[in-house]
Amino acid sequence: MGREITKDTVLCMSLAARPSNHGTRFHNFLYDELGLDYVYKAFTTTDLAAAIGGIRALGIRGCGVSMPFKEACIEYVNAMDSSAARIRSVNTIVNTDGHLRAYNTDYLAVARLLADHRVAPDHTFAVLGSGGMAKAVVAALRDAGFESGTVVARNERTGAALAEQYGYAWRSELGADRPRLLVNATPVGMAGGPAADDLPVAPEAVDAAETVFDVVALPSLTPLVRRAQAGGKRVILGSEVSALQAAEQFALYTGVRPTADQVRRASEYARG
Amino acid sequence: MGREITKDTVLCMSLAARPSNHGTRFHNFLYDELGLDYVYKAFTTTDLAAAIGGIRALGIRGCGVSMPFKEACIEYVNAMDSSAARIRSVNTIVNTDGHLRAYNTDYLAVARLLADHRVAPDHTFAVLGSGGMAKAVVAALRDAGFESGTVVARNERTGAALAEQYGYAWRSELGADRPRLLVNATPVGMAGGPAADDLPVAPEAVDAAETVFDVVALPSLTPLVRRAQAGGKRVILGSEVSALQAAEQFALYTGVRPTADQVRRASEYARG
Repeated sequence: MGREITKDTVLCMSLAARPSNHGTRFHNFLYDELGLDYVYKAFTTTDLAAAIGGIRALGIRGCGVSMPFKEACIEYVNAMDSSAARIRSVNTIVNTDGHLRAYNTDYLAVARLLADHRVAPDHTFAVLGSGGMAKAVVAALRDAGFESGTVVARNERTGAALAEQYGYAWRSELGADRPRLLVNATPVGMAGGPAADDLPVAPEAVDAAETVFDVVALPSLTPLVRRAQAGGKRVILGSEVSALQAAEQFALYTGVRPTADQVRRASEYARG
Repeated sequence: MGREITKDTVLCMSLAARPSNHGTRFHNFLYDELGLDYVYKAFTTTDLAAAIGGIRALGIRGCGVSMPFKEACIEYVNAMDSSAARIRSVNTIVNTDGHLRAYNTDYLAVARLLADHRVAPDHTFAVLGSGGMAKAVVAALRDAGFESGTVVARNERTGAALAEQYGYAWRSELGADRPRLLVNATPVGMAGGPAADDLPVAPEAVDAAETVFDVVALPSLTPLVRRAQAGGKRVILGSEVSALQAAEQFALYTGVRPTADQVRRASEYARG
């Protein structure tokens, strides 16, 4: 029979337009590893209000939220954690006796990585991109005390708005800027994407940086990361963000924080 | 890891005020036995409308319905199968692409057992009780062509109403009646109940019957069943109803009808 599911087994889940198997494999691996009476399964829906009402009514403990529900779900929860409130983007809902609290564990993971890697807040920075992950990064930089930086995004509407919200500058291109901290929050370098083999900026900008942070998780070693590593830079990986945000989510659902080794093995299993 | 749950694994569930582990164990045993990518878990709720809305929105394939939701759920489904419509009692909901159809597999099981055991419809009968299972039994007797019988129930309101709906007589006590078919649809004889060691009628009525049908499933061999067997009667067991209704439910959810041997082993496992 394998692991037995009973009436008392706690269900956690995810909602996405196109669910992947990653979360299901990651969480179930750790439930087994840690001997927790939980089970995880990805779902999709065409009725977000009823789906979230069902989470509340059925006592489903937690729900990972992916595209296109990250903002739409806000009106259906009871409370917004500060990690999600300011960026208006939710990736995690925790249900405590019918009270739904929304979090953004990407924000939590980025904030923790900036601290763990001891990136000094007097670094000037450039964040490339203005999507959901860029919002999490810029908010985390502001909360870590970074005073001077630029949001670099072709989309003026979203890019300028993001920069303005946190008191930073906006530019459509990096140009001749040579920030000490360079953060890629665009899909450039992502496996299977149209720019999988590209750098998101000119090579000279990578070479001039002290710290390079790429939020692309697949592959772990993007062209940007490889060039930065070759140049001896301090490097923060997207796979670190991915693993850490999933571990934060896991801890919110279960109250148990997996070790770094457990997270690494669960991530490997989830990818495999 | 045991059986792996993926994003494509189909979820079935149950709703009850006080869930037991029986359904969870029965269905998961058969999913494993038959190699079906399904998983089953019991839930409770304090918000039936939202729970059923969640079943629809999340694509949960099926839901067993127990007390106290068997009638209350009717307003939230899209269609009533004839097995549930007349008795106004639902124990099974099947979700096909968001369309919820409600069934009563107790009715289906009783009807099938009357046919399988070749109980001739010219038998006069007495059904003891006027609760949910009595309703399923009386409806099945009417649909099998039984013309003459009595509902025996102390509760005049429910007993007389049930008898009248199907054109049968009502009495508060069996008295000197000696029906050829005697059906117990009361809790008398149920393990752990206040009348676990009792017969629901006078011993002479058991001895005078040709066929005895006890819907009590636990234990399988109630005092009524043991006396009937000792007297060489044709006997239909509550454990047969229980196993058959669960098999009907299983077939409705999965499209696969388990064999009698598989149902027997799943029932044993579920009780264990």
